[in-house]
Amino acid sequence: MSRPIALLTDFGYDDAFAGIVKGVILTRFAEARIWDLTHGVPQQDVLSGALHLMAAAPFCPPDTVFMAVVDPGVGSERRGVIARSGSRLFVGPDNGLLWPAAAQFGEPEFFHLNRPRYWLPNPSATFHGRDVFAPIAAMLALGRAAEDFGDPIADAVRLELPVPVSSSGVITGEILMVDRFGNAVTNVRPEDLNNPPAESVTFQIEGHSVRGPSTHYGSVAPGDAVIVLGSMGFYEVSVNRSSAAECLGLRRGMRISARIQSDSW
Amino acid sequence: MSRPIALLTDFGYDDAFAGIVKGVILTRFAEARIWDLTHGVPQQDVLSGALHLMAAAPFCPPDTVFMAVVDPGVGSERRGVIARSGSRLFVGPDNGLLWPAAAQFGEPEFFHLNRPRYWLPNPSATFHGRDVFAPIAAMLALGRAAEDFGDPIADAVRLELPVPVSSSGVITGEILMVDRFGNAVTNVRPEDLNNPPAESVTFQIEGHSVRGPSTHYGSVAPGDAVIVLGSMGFYEVSVNRSSAAECLGLRRGMRISARIQSDSW
Amino acid sequence: MSRPIALLTDFGYDDAFAGIVKGVILTRFAEARIWDLTHGVPQQDVLSGALHLMAAAPFCPPDTVFMAVVDPGVGSERRGVIARSGSRLFVGPDNGLLWPAAAQFGEPEFFHLNRPRYWLPNPSATFHGRDVFAPIAAMLALGRAAEDFGDPIADAVRLELPVPVSSSGVITGEILMVDRFGNAVTNVRPEDLNNPPAESVTFQIEGHSVRGPSTHYGSVAPGDAVIVLGSMGFYEVSVNRSSAAECLGLRRGMRISARIQSDSW
Repeated sequence: MSRPIALLTDFGYDDAFAGIVKGVILTRFAEARIWDLTHGVPQQDVLSGALHLMAAAPFCPPDTVFMAVVDPGVGSERRGVIARSGSRLFVGPDNGLLWPAAAQFGEPEFFHLNRPRYWLPNPSATFHGRDVFAPIAAMLALGRAAEDFGDPIADAVRLELPVPVSSSGVITGEILMVDRFGNAVTNVRPEDLNNPPAESVTFQIEGHSVRGPSTHYGSVAPGDAVIVLGSMGFYEVSVNRSSAAECLGLRRGMRISARIQSDSW
Repeated sequence: MSRPIALLTDFGYDDAFAGIVKGVILTRFAEARIWDLTHGVPQQDVLSGALHLMAAAPFCPPDTVFMAVVDPGVGSERRGVIARSGSRLFVGPDNGLLWPAAAQFGEPEFFHLNRPRYWLPNPSATFHGRDVFAPIAAMLALGRAAEDFGDPIADAVRLELPVPVSSSGVITGEILMVDRFGNAVTNVRPEDLNNPPAESVTFQIEGHSVRGPSTHYGSVAPGDAVIVLGSMGFYEVSVNRSSAAECLGLRRGMRISARIQSDSW
Repeated sequence: MSRPIALLTDFGYDDAFAGIVKGVILTRFAEARIWDLTHGVPQQDVLSGALHLMAAAPFCPPDTVFMAVVDPGVGSERRGVIARSGSRLFVGPDNGLLWPAAAQFGEPEFFHLNRPRYWLPNPSATFHGRDVFAPIAAMLALGRAAEDFGDPIADAVRLELPVPVSSSGVITGEILMVDRFGNAVTNVRPEDLNNPPAESVTFQIEGHSVRGPSTHYGSVAPGDAVIVLGSMGFYEVSVNRSSAAECLGLRRGMRISARIQSDSW
């Protein structure tokens, strides 16, 4: 049985880049099962791409080949790599993009893609998704081993997410990303707050004070801010039936603090 | 033979939400045949989603499982449902989204998704597309019956499209939606006007008077307004080689009236 | 073995048009292997669509059926056609869209789609992608011959790309398109400049002078302009880690000139 292939890039939807990648894969493996995680990662935004890949991977088949390309250094000396973590394989640039997704399943092994005989002939300097990563993804899907495509390396680029800090009973985190609905995903997890019960925490974000966590968006009136445990496993700042990013002016990197209203802390 | 799965959501293309849904389906059914109707429904716009789903369903294989998610009430008490209409199955929130699509094939049966053992463990309050609807869509595609996932209900939410009204020889309808090309889709069908011959009707829209229906966009000069029978079965207001929405300032809900220039009325 | 089907349209992602096309194909060929090149071609922009299709086709399986729809004349007297070029088949409107892609593999044969018995019944005047091209693409994928769907014609519309001109040792070309990253794709190929070595050419674009071609984006500082050989085989004007279109104000049709700094010219 072959492996399925999931794609995540910043190629967008206006050009044929993502479609060309699939063409290359299908040329080598006509029956490949390919699907898109997204091609809408903000251009050259490695952190956003890494977060989406990390969020998606646990919900994909455990034998998936993930091909991810957010690659501002394409054509330079930056390496291409395969990361292997348990049964999962990740192919892409060695710029940290693959790290959080792969590392959540255990310490990944990395292989440097240094064998051009597996690439398209005369690879371009601008489109390694097409010329390097796609043919390798196809061959991995067909059952080839990561070892075939390059030498193991121990110094792959790591991208560690910022971790909340605790001081004087207050946990301070930050906004990692804003999603399509205007929800602001923070880096604060329930375990950072000792898995607090509903409505037991006071969050401070950009001058607003919000009680939470709430069980769902509709626990506050439409237009009001609410903190819920989001689908990525982090607390998110939302506004019921609207966009928290717009209503509260939220952007990546902004601070959020949390203080539990209980003696158990 | 398994059923194919068609997806329609307001998840957009910037995040990995739609890709994660596919990952969940493929985890349960590795050979699933999945395709996108669209993920570009305006956020939380149930009527738009319902219209697109209604327009698409007749052109899809008759054994399709449609999974549709436009779900402003996610996490609240709103129910999840399966609608069954002839050979077709529809999975999604019980907010009317599925109704017009399912009802066009006959009176649908509804089943309340009240058996959590078929969902992902510990479902989130914000992403039932991933945690509830996707695993059920996968199992329906594999051949399981709708009855397996919940009890039949008779009070599913109905979403009835506005119907044109006739008064003094004038039919008055409204704009249901504007498409990507700026065409304004009305709720007026040929049968509302006794299937009029070409150029026999005077339409009034936002102070503009347009003769029609015309046989194709190019029957008027570039830049001129034209009424054609659109691909959804409704009359549409268009501007040849341009956007009617922009040129004429059209938006959903605006009135359009039609008077047939003939004694047969 | 069936043929795979690649889709390229200007239908966008907000409506279900592209999804409906797939529904029609899957209704006729349940196991069809379909993928998207893009549906984000600018509306009614035949040249952009033709460029993307031309760039993608060489990287797709050689037995692909390409269905392409950018069709401002839909419903008028413009013909629908199949173009056959070697092992590849192209289906779409006869407005030049298919020409550059098909012609790069040799002189294409064209067939006029004049046999309505193969279309959907009662085809609309506005959506031939659904009603004419999709059912034919499905049957071509199943192995039917192009001859079955229409008569051969010798007067298909040709779309010839503008060619650079040489005068007094200066090659003058133009910008063909701007991609998602803001790179400006020119119509100048290495062979137009006798395959110049790196950094041996002075390019002039909108008052800016840029040495090149460079081997990759990172060969200049972030924010600086750079000329690289792009993935479509043309020189492209880029800005390292930014958008050349924005930084330099570049748009389609603008002139670019190149003078080789060498006696070999």
